[in-house]
Amino acid sequence: MSKGFMLVCDGSNGAGKTTVIKGIEAHLQSKGYEVVLTREPGGTEIGEKIREVILDPSTPQMSDMTELMLFGAARAQHIVEKIKPALDAGKIVISDRFDAATFSFQHYARGIDLETIKTINDLALSGFKPDLNIILDLDPKVGLQRVQQRGEGMDRLEVEKLDFLNRAREGYLAQAAAEPEIFTVIDASFSKDEVLQRCLNAVDNLFEKV
Amino acid sequence: MSKGFMLVCDGSNGAGKTTVIKGIEAHLQSKGYEVVLTREPGGTEIGEKIREVILDPSTPQMSDMTELMLFGAARAQHIVEKIKPALDAGKIVISDRFDAATFSFQHYARGIDLETIKTINDLALSGFKPDLNIILDLDPKVGLQRVQQRGEGMDRLEVEKLDFLNRAREGYLAQAAAEPEIFTVIDASFSKDEVLQRCLNAVDNLFEKV
Ligand SMILES: Nc1ncnc2c1ncn2[C@@H]1O[C@H](COP(=O)(O)OP(=O)(O)OP(=O)(O)O)[C@@H](O)[C@H]1O
Ligand SMILES: Nc1ncnc2c1ncn2[C@@H]1O[C@H](COP(=O)(O)OP(=O)(O)OP(=O)(O)O)[C@@H](O)[C@H]1O
Ligand SMILES: [Mg+2]
Ligand SMILES: [Mg+2]
Repeated sequence: MSKGFMLVCDGSNGAGKTTVIKGIEAHLQSKGYEVVLTREPGGTEIGEKIREVILDPSTPQMSDMTELMLFGAARAQHIVEKIKPALDAGKIVISDRFDAATFSFQHYARGIDLETIKTINDLALSGFKPDLNIILDLDPKVGLQRVQQRGEGMDRLEVEKLDFLNRAREGYLAQAAAEPEIFTVIDASFSKDEVLQRCLNAVDNLFEKV
Repeated sequence: MSKGFMLVCDGSNGAGKTTVIKGIEAHLQSKGYEVVLTREPGGTEIGEKIREVILDPSTPQMSDMTELMLFGAARAQHIVEKIKPALDAGKIVISDRFDAATFSFQHYARGIDLETIKTINDLALSGFKPDLNIILDLDPKVGLQRVQQRGEGMDRLEVEKLDFLNRAREGYLAQAAAEPEIFTVIDASFSKDEVLQRCLNAVDNLFEKV
């Protein structure tokens, strides 16, 4: 049994994941926890290289299966090399996206069958599960506006059409409904402060339960 | 049904795969065939990027599962983007390594269980199979000497220990024994000319059969 906790912040593009994670980190550090921030795809040297391949906007011809296995490869490395060691050392890991994103984007949005995704994901996870997935729920149109205002370029996945992103959003909600023990949905249309406060409540709740 | 043929040249490091493939290509071209040379891992723009990640000698910490899924990702892309279209156009595809290498190195040598490898490989192949695997069989010690004499650097997989390479060699022989219809083992300890001649006989045999 690992001594730490793994939190995931997930949801639509531009919903505010990265913003919220910084706030959760500060909150937990002020309570004396050691926090490790990480992200998917990526999180390790190998994983970040795989991330570059996945997100490269110059290769739209990438097959669905290729994409799925690249996510799996990065995730397997992430768990073995970074997440498990941190949890074993009693730290709190917060990941910007994790496996819920694969189900949302690859199954609900892209239409790869659930069994295939479960097969790859189970091999990558080999029994591991996050303690809490915080899903920032937001109309993708608003999320894209936020991303555009942030003023960085768009990667291969961000240029997907709106109905694709809407299906991914539905995917997050469906997963949260199916596994309420490890999912919390937060309405991300509120102000940054309000969204963060709701996330902190969810985190504090989890820590009180144990 | 595709109209072309897919040949694979596989076997130990330094056995002479790349050398033989050039000879087979020239032979087939002189008979009027259109030949497409390719290799694994790699063969496509995306696959070559994945190849760089797999072979990078600076990341020995790569987990077995990560490696396996990277091979799978590259293979899925290879088939969809390059191999099937070429076969459909009636061309002969010759690949420098293919899925037999995954079974040899990841299962027989590295010890990942066969079921896991079959699962990933079947997802990557989605029903596709090469028409002929030519296995160049050679004592890995001799192969490494040939590689050293060739005078390029060694990648992450070539620096594996000899008993690892010996187990991979046994893996090739085991696969060939189990599926003699699509495997031919060629003794690669002979001269270049002799090895090539034996390979050409195997190829001509295949073409006569159909
Ligand atoms: N609740 C909010 N209301 C308005 N703007 C917000 C809110 N939360 C974050 N933002 C802003 O929206 C933009 C996107 O936020 P952020 O980068 O945190 O989202 P993200 O979910 O991490 O995006 P991505 O999916 O691209 O990683 C940033 O400019 C951020 O300052
Ligand atoms: N039958 C042979 N006898 C002696 N030397 C050979 C023979 N075949 C190839 N060589 C030489 O051995 C070296 C390795 O050959 P080659 O590059 O074709 O092997 P390979 O199987 O493609 O190696 P790798 O696994 O590194 O890709 C080259 O320098 C080549 O000229
Ligand atoms: Mg972000
Ligand atoms: Mg070669």
